[in-house]
Amino acid sequence: MGFNTFGTIFQVTTFGESHGPAIGAVIDGCPAGLPISLEEINRELRSRRPGHNPLTSPRNESDLCQILSGLFEGKTTGAPITLLIENKDADSSQYESIKHLLRPGHANFSYLEKYGIFDYRGGGRASARETAARVAAGAIAKALLTVEGIEICAYVTELGGVRGERPDWGNLGELKTRVQVSPVFCPDPKAAILMIQEIETVKEEGDSVGGIIEAVALHLPAGLGDPIYGKLEANLAAAMLSIPASKGFEIGAGFASARMKGSEHNDPFALDSEGRVITSTNFAGGTLGGISTGQPLYFQVPFKPTSSIKKRQMSVDLNQEVSPFQLPLQGRHDPCIAIRAVPVVEAMLALVLADALLANRLSKLKFSTV
Amino acid sequence: MGFNTFGTIFQVTTFGESHGPAIGAVIDGCPAGLPISLEEINRELRSRRPGHNPLTSPRNESDLCQILSGLFEGKTTGAPITLLIENKDADSSQYESIKHLLRPGHANFSYLEKYGIFDYRGGGRASARETAARVAAGAIAKALLTVEGIEICAYVTELGGVRGERPDWGNLGELKTRVQVSPVFCPDPKAAILMIQEIETVKEEGDSVGGIIEAVALHLPAGLGDPIYGKLEANLAAAMLSIPASKGFEIGAGFASARMKGSEHNDPFALDSEGRVITSTNFAGGTLGGISTGQPLYFQVPFKPTSSIKKRQMSVDLNQEVSPFQLPLQGRHDPCIAIRAVPVVEAMLALVLADALLANRLSKLKFSTV
Amino acid sequence: MGFNTFGTIFQVTTFGESHGPAIGAVIDGCPAGLPISLEEINRELRSRRPGHNPLTSPRNESDLCQILSGLFEGKTTGAPITLLIENKDADSSQYESIKHLLRPGHANFSYLEKYGIFDYRGGGRASARETAARVAAGAIAKALLTVEGIEICAYVTELGGVRGERPDWGNLGELKTRVQVSPVFCPDPKAAILMIQEIETVKEEGDSVGGIIEAVALHLPAGLGDPIYGKLEANLAAAMLSIPASKGFEIGAGFASARMKGSEHNDPFALDSEGRVITSTNFAGGTLGGISTGQPLYFQVPFKPTSSIKKRQMSVDLNQEVSPFQLPLQGRHDPCIAIRAVPVVEAMLALVLADALLANRLSKLKFSTV
Amino acid sequence: MGFNTFGTIFQVTTFGESHGPAIGAVIDGCPAGLPISLEEINRELRSRRPGHNPLTSPRNESDLCQILSGLFEGKTTGAPITLLIENKDADSSQYESIKHLLRPGHANFSYLEKYGIFDYRGGGRASARETAARVAAGAIAKALLTVEGIEICAYVTELGGVRGERPDWGNLGELKTRVQVSPVFCPDPKAAILMIQEIETVKEEGDSVGGIIEAVALHLPAGLGDPIYGKLEANLAAAMLSIPASKGFEIGAGFASARMKGSEHNDPFALDSEGRVITSTNFAGGTLGGISTGQPLYFQVPFKPTSSIKKRQMSVDLNQEVSPFQLPLQGRHDPCIAIRAVPVVEAMLALVLADALLANRLSKLKFSTV
Repeated sequence: MGFNTFGTIFQVTTFGESHGPAIGAVIDGCPAGLPISLEEINRELRSRRPGHNPLTSPRNESDLCQILSGLFEGKTTGAPITLLIENKDADSSQYESIKHLLRPGHANFSYLEKYGIFDYRGGGRASARETAARVAAGAIAKALLTVEGIEICAYVTELGGVRGERPDWGNLGELKTRVQVSPVFCPDPKAAILMIQEIETVKEEGDSVGGIIEAVALHLPAGLGDPIYGKLEANLAAAMLSIPASKGFEIGAGFASARMKGSEHNDPFALDSEGRVITSTNFAGGTLGGISTGQPLYFQVPFKPTSSIKKRQMSVDLNQEVSPFQLPLQGRHDPCIAIRAVPVVEAMLALVLADALLANRLSKLKFSTV
Repeated sequence: MGFNTFGTIFQVTTFGESHGPAIGAVIDGCPAGLPISLEEINRELRSRRPGHNPLTSPRNESDLCQILSGLFEGKTTGAPITLLIENKDADSSQYESIKHLLRPGHANFSYLEKYGIFDYRGGGRASARETAARVAAGAIAKALLTVEGIEICAYVTELGGVRGERPDWGNLGELKTRVQVSPVFCPDPKAAILMIQEIETVKEEGDSVGGIIEAVALHLPAGLGDPIYGKLEANLAAAMLSIPASKGFEIGAGFASARMKGSEHNDPFALDSEGRVITSTNFAGGTLGGISTGQPLYFQVPFKPTSSIKKRQMSVDLNQEVSPFQLPLQGRHDPCIAIRAVPVVEAMLALVLADALLANRLSKLKFSTV
Repeated sequence: MGFNTFGTIFQVTTFGESHGPAIGAVIDGCPAGLPISLEEINRELRSRRPGHNPLTSPRNESDLCQILSGLFEGKTTGAPITLLIENKDADSSQYESIKHLLRPGHANFSYLEKYGIFDYRGGGRASARETAARVAAGAIAKALLTVEGIEICAYVTELGGVRGERPDWGNLGELKTRVQVSPVFCPDPKAAILMIQEIETVKEEGDSVGGIIEAVALHLPAGLGDPIYGKLEANLAAAMLSIPASKGFEIGAGFASARMKGSEHNDPFALDSEGRVITSTNFAGGTLGGISTGQPLYFQVPFKPTSSIKKRQMSVDLNQEVSPFQLPLQGRHDPCIAIRAVPVVEAMLALVLADALLANRLSKLKFSTV
Repeated sequence: MGFNTFGTIFQVTTFGESHGPAIGAVIDGCPAGLPISLEEINRELRSRRPGHNPLTSPRNESDLCQILSGLFEGKTTGAPITLLIENKDADSSQYESIKHLLRPGHANFSYLEKYGIFDYRGGGRASARETAARVAAGAIAKALLTVEGIEICAYVTELGGVRGERPDWGNLGELKTRVQVSPVFCPDPKAAILMIQEIETVKEEGDSVGGIIEAVALHLPAGLGDPIYGKLEANLAAAMLSIPASKGFEIGAGFASARMKGSEHNDPFALDSEGRVITSTNFAGGTLGGISTGQPLYFQVPFKPTSSIKKRQMSVDLNQEVSPFQLPLQGRHDPCIAIRAVPVVEAMLALVLADALLANRLSKLKFSTV
């Protein structure tokens, strides 16, 4: 149970609605002694903040995080860490007039069927605003990864049909900088220009586009992930499909692997110059049997085009129930939700890996290393 | 924790290794009063049984299931249901000579790194043999779905690059029959012929091919699935990526949705002739906000080509550690694991839906229906 | 995992330290549609509030609760409910001088051994202040019990060796009033006078006393609770032993049952005037096989005397490590923690029953009632 | 959920009914590399076996355990360990005639109300037979404790009103031997004689008696147990109250602590000859704030008299529903269930400690020891 909790050891519970007083997260299971910087959390939050980017939604939230518990003298204590982000720029009035409308691509119908009640203001609990709490929690997971020497990066690899080239993962620091400075979080500058044009076009049309995010994790120790239902890729898939608007997941060669032969797809084992076991290709994407091999872990996640568009659409009004009519939506929305999802994909990846790192402490009778 | 357990309410724990005395499953959380037929479980098991199909592995297991607990006078009692399948045709001797070899595409290296120990006989716990226990458990989940009027079907939609046409879901009974009679579990007879040719070719070459499985669920009530981390597609994605050799997941339009515009992809709401809310298209694939809409739920899962091939491959021997050499594999293996995965995809789908059905009993203060 | 979470369906996660900015709770799993009154939550909080009672600690917290999420138009929505209580009267300065002292009966030594770090201010996470969050969450569980017609009450039955008479449970409304008006939460007025005298005596001596709390739940349906490890009494025992300073638990005749014969202790089944199955005695305390019988559920919980006393005690200073010396404690503390624990026992009982009520929706294939 | 599973990391799921083909346990979360001896498991099982002791039930089960999974070359692999015990001496015929009778002190009424169905043969899932699976699983937990140098022992301390003296815990090996050779598992030989007389008396009367079990764990490291809801005593209390017929739990001074003053009950901290922190008394019973102090952990558990007696009792027949009549019980039953519960208490203690040991690996950023 606990459908608002992610993770088995490093457990993150998020709470809050789009137009309630605040959203936030409680992290239970973070080891004691981890140095946490509030500034670092806020930096992560800024990267997903609405209003920060001319290509994304004009909602302007300062998104400053408070830490309510779990820290003492700058370090985690082993007690639950509570992160709180107030909702300041939430204007609910515009939703009043459309509260009986089933908005195409939105969750109000399915929530109403499930709960018999729906906080229609800005999507309520189903709003992507909830993901800000994930990004804040992800910043703490990243602090844990940093201690272990693991680096991660997510970026837009395709948008509105424009495909960027796969970047070099050799220098992840530089890659991260290139992603951060791109308004579309795309490290391929040529593709980025075309993506921006595409967004501007659909924005003018009152329409939206989809995109694909790729993420990579480097320097993972071999042995992360758990067998059967706790496979690293199973946890990653669940994490990614839990992000609003995501429609899929593939690891390594993914769907393309279905078109390969075994002799092509099998990554041959080899020894590197220091005698460590490696694979000379990496179609697997960094795991075998659901457990990390030490090779780069990489995967892709497609995002549908933003559901909220200004174009006329057909819909149903719950009151009248007979005459579908136009959706007069005036809200503040992103023409491409995939851009906004980049920090969320990175945060969820961090959560999955932090969890797997801690789970790995349990696998052997005696530890060789810590 | 509990990495060998799937589900939050309808919980299935599987156990057993490829070459141990038995595999099995314990189901905890099945409501009392559900009629269970052992014959039905065994029928499901036969459909994934090795040796049953000339195109799959020659391992010949009778795969008869025993029910050790949880039934009384043919009905579930609310107590845990234990299913046991003995391993009878397990020949471990052939694995002795390759026990120090890291088999490309297999999990022995990552398991060794994780556990410091590995039951190398036939893949041990990482073997696809474990999925027989899932199929048996899935038969019980299917009994629950049947009571609720829900129908499901999985089939091969692509194999070795050959793509079948999407079948008509209008008559699921007929579709299931067509899938069952096809040696490649493909309901498109023309594509099936080409797929069979493809398999025979790679078999002769000592190679293997990948494939894609599609699955559909009909007559789901609206409101199934849970918010945030318990989204129906998140649970399905985790379920599918937990199947050995699967490399991805997509729901509805999936990766293709990333190339669509919002005005194309948004499924307009409408009313059917009886005044019920429907959507006139279904690019979403049956959920909105992670919760079912009542439209058909459908998704695809790619499977890599079987890792065990007869062709020469490069590898590493753990003893010598310096000279990679050929893998002299003589075992019994499938040229296309995707075929064998069809009943497993169906079983995992049944488990996810049974769990969601039970979780739905908890969402409202008062029930309107039961 | 999730050691700060209680419950399997109605899950309460508490957070916060004694001297941090706030404490609170997130409730995940409460059904949608439950009317919640903030005033009711605050009323519950007042009954455990320090400074409210001359016989308890002088710490003066207004303990007003805010609801940050999960409510819409006065009803629960199915989303997580977040309750926040600010810490306003926390004075940490007094703890500075004793931060290296191992305080007898306190958790600083064991926490330090576990975490290598300890927020020594007022007991940090180990402080009884955390129980305010439980009381707030318990108020929401009580709202659920009220809908189902279940009534509960906890009270002091023994204090400093003075034993009160077991009250009549026939009129629970009146009993609750008598408990609320007693400064020692004891419904037996004669015993209460002696208890007050006992507290005043030990207070003057700079000492403290222990006590025993009894609790009862009426109008439970038969069938609540789960088999084996989810027995109602197992969950209650865990709940009660999770309260700071509690040292035990007994249900029904409890320890005394060990001195009875089967022919005495077995509660004979009978039929009431309306033909319903009852038992003519109730030594069992309301359950059989861990599942409710419909008879009154009752149990007792002993609390040790408050650890913080003004008397001279031997201890160890972590800095010097050789010379134990006197603990110069000036803080604000209760001479009898058992009194303060009464609302907490009631809250934990409410949480256990709310959880069991929801779990009961899962036990049968079809519901006869809802 | 998972009401048939105990533990958060070292998770034991038991299955099986009294008169089904088998009972057993699946252990998920045991670290790889632990040597397991089947003979040791069977030795544990013999100590709780019916028919082994003239003072207990004449049911004669060989209770030999099979290990179906999770072991390779004598060591655990990290995969789930499955233990199976066949039911061989189960005679269901005698239950046919009383299948509509509500047996006083038994769970058939409450199970029927919960599930609408009940496997009446020998108590079905509610039978104490299930505890054999716990004892088998406990043997594996004990192997883990042994590696860590932790010793545990449980024994009868009171029976039918006869109280034994608390034994010396200094030599636990000798104590365990004295417990094993006593027909009533009581290490005080004088008390044991009186206890045996008491049992023989009630047996002749067709009646039964209750008893109290005490258990102790030595050489626990400080820091075991988790805060708030994962307190060592909360987990122990849940474990003990999950055992059939147990009616309570107390740790350390327990209920007696409610009659002590703080100056008496507080255990003063001191330093031992090697400079380690100890407490000079141990009324707390080995924990502070729910976390172990390194002092002996000890607790008591009362058991009600066996419910199945030969004396005439009043009851209700579900068919006739009007005329209560005599229960003509002919089954094989124990005059004192507390004796049979000794190995079960020990097993559950082992499970709680194994779980806490593993959880402790997660508390700090870096390990000082492993």
